[in-house]
Amino acid sequence: MSRYWSALVGTLDPYVPGEQPKVSNLVKLNTNEHPLGPSPLALEAMHRSVDESLRLYPDPASDQLRQAIARHHGVGVDQIFVGNGSDEVLAHVFQGLLKHENAPLRFPDISYSFYPVYCGLFDIPFEKIPLDASFRIRASDYVGEATGAKSGPIIFPNPNAPTGIALALNDVETIVRANPQAVVVVDEAYVDFGAESAVALVNTYPNLLTVHTLSKSRSLAGLRVGYAIGQADLIQALDRVKNCFNSYPVDRIAQAGAAAAIDDEAYFAQASQYVIDERNRLTTALEELGFDVLPSSANFVFARHASIPGAQIAEFLRERHVLVRHFQKPRIENFLRISIGTSEQSAVLLAALKDLTV
Amino acid sequence: MSRYWSALVGTLDPYVPGEQPKVSNLVKLNTNEHPLGPSPLALEAMHRSVDESLRLYPDPASDQLRQAIARHHGVGVDQIFVGNGSDEVLAHVFQGLLKHENAPLRFPDISYSFYPVYCGLFDIPFEKIPLDASFRIRASDYVGEATGAKSGPIIFPNPNAPTGIALALNDVETIVRANPQAVVVVDEAYVDFGAESAVALVNTYPNLLTVHTLSKSRSLAGLRVGYAIGQADLIQALDRVKNCFNSYPVDRIAQAGAAAAIDDEAYFAQASQYVIDERNRLTTALEELGFDVLPSSANFVFARHASIPGAQIAEFLRERHVLVRHFQKPRIENFLRISIGTSEQSAVLLAALKDLTV
Repeated sequence: MSRYWSALVGTLDPYVPGEQPKVSNLVKLNTNEHPLGPSPLALEAMHRSVDESLRLYPDPASDQLRQAIARHHGVGVDQIFVGNGSDEVLAHVFQGLLKHENAPLRFPDISYSFYPVYCGLFDIPFEKIPLDASFRIRASDYVGEATGAKSGPIIFPNPNAPTGIALALNDVETIVRANPQAVVVVDEAYVDFGAESAVALVNTYPNLLTVHTLSKSRSLAGLRVGYAIGQADLIQALDRVKNCFNSYPVDRIAQAGAAAAIDDEAYFAQASQYVIDERNRLTTALEELGFDVLPSSANFVFARHASIPGAQIAEFLRERHVLVRHFQKPRIENFLRISIGTSEQSAVLLAALKDLTV
Repeated sequence: MSRYWSALVGTLDPYVPGEQPKVSNLVKLNTNEHPLGPSPLALEAMHRSVDESLRLYPDPASDQLRQAIARHHGVGVDQIFVGNGSDEVLAHVFQGLLKHENAPLRFPDISYSFYPVYCGLFDIPFEKIPLDASFRIRASDYVGEATGAKSGPIIFPNPNAPTGIALALNDVETIVRANPQAVVVVDEAYVDFGAESAVALVNTYPNLLTVHTLSKSRSLAGLRVGYAIGQADLIQALDRVKNCFNSYPVDRIAQAGAAAAIDDEAYFAQASQYVIDERNRLTTALEELGFDVLPSSANFVFARHASIPGAQIAEFLRERHVLVRHFQKPRIENFLRISIGTSEQSAVLLAALKDLTV
């Protein structure tokens, strides 16, 4: 470690995102991008915003974009915080709402692997709560006597990643209601592919915050826009942190494109259904090849083969120019996380797996 | 303060950016945007990047953009860190390089007002070093016995903001050379309008980092791209922090547009010269109206009238639909910071000031 680094830097264990290869002849099923492109109306809005006005700063409050989000979800504009991708939103959430001395943050042992990284960056104490034997979040683990006397905040993705398994809304509500002393963050990055959103509970529970991204169901991973929804009090904390970090986090083109994408409800419904249908077909086909596929409500499946180790399958697929994600971690080392691609991409994947498993 | 907020949040004193009005019939000279639009080649590159590939994440390392920056400055790609505007780059610099217990960060008492805000966000001890009576940074104040035994890191803008006054490169070098124990950050947001860049010293001094933005001389405030240049060791600290915060900070369109803007050296030279010529004309005209104008090497001037208070002038101009920036702060409460606009905008400003001062 360099003497010029702040003491913190040497202690960090950075997140490793899925590979973004620079060659194009790959079937890329490793980072849960949408197989279809963004809404044509969003592309048009972005083209319109590429002009001389780029010399001017963007609206620091992203008002037009927040209005579109408010319309879509039926909440107030003051209940919305936007940022440069949901990863930035989550960073501000961790720093502004989830750091409490003597009240460790709780999240599942198998979950989005960025959570412990944020804890390292902001020096947040945390405790991992194991998923049950079928890789599900058990609401009762976050309730009452199962928790300590000074129960801290909670965060989990719904559907969970990388399992893809959704938690029913009444289970989410059980957790939120049982923890009025602490913020509960539901990370809904994948919610549009089949889970129930907790946004419906936001006006009932002052301790509930939901986090969303345009990278998945809106096909805009390349644009970097995410947001959070909660009561105004929680949003104010995020605004305060943001205004001490970067006044203008979302650029002019991104604000315009994201607002148009949110407004295009018809395209959104159709593109989400495409993924759901493809996921159902892929699940059946994988099961026929001897895979155990966890029940997914996301735009990916998490699957293990009855006899072939996960690392070996991932390596075999890579040789066939198919990228999937493999995590060398306890409990899930034999699973692969496979993003839902187009029908054509699924066909290439399945043909390769057939060669491996026969 | 809400019980749900992290303890930090209640202590924050957020930065207040210059107003971004939503009406268009204003002469907007309050946030140092470039009066001309971005390079036409940059606009073309952005149009080309608005397509279906936005469904994919951007290159997390921004390789193509860093290559363009490396070519422009004649440094290695591994000496460059890019972020979502130089404000984000600075945030990572503060957290990753400028936080040292018992070695307070030093910066001028009159300087970019975001610096103490970052210190609040990251709990960084700091000490303000007064500018001299003519509002200049005195290199000797940062050297030898003038500093404490455990001299901490240093940051200053060059040219300084909001004064616009440049520090000569040999004075910058004096400060960097005299502080081998600590990082010296030169924030070169405005350097292209007439100051000497310290990038020329980066390979000589392992403790020097320069910070740059495309918001000013590249006319791309609306796109949010900034970068830092230093030896690889310093860049690694920033990469580590960034990869614990947001893996993909610069979107696909911004990477493409920024790279094309950097490559367009001809447009850059011509647009920068336009601002310099306008600044010189405006300075003369303001002096004829009884203003004391500090010698500016930036895309703004910092000026006070011999007899009319700054707040009164700012209010008068606002009634005439001309926005300038006024800081209600000690030593500079009678100054106005006026961004350099087009000749037409300068004419409107000067006509209004003539009405006020006759």
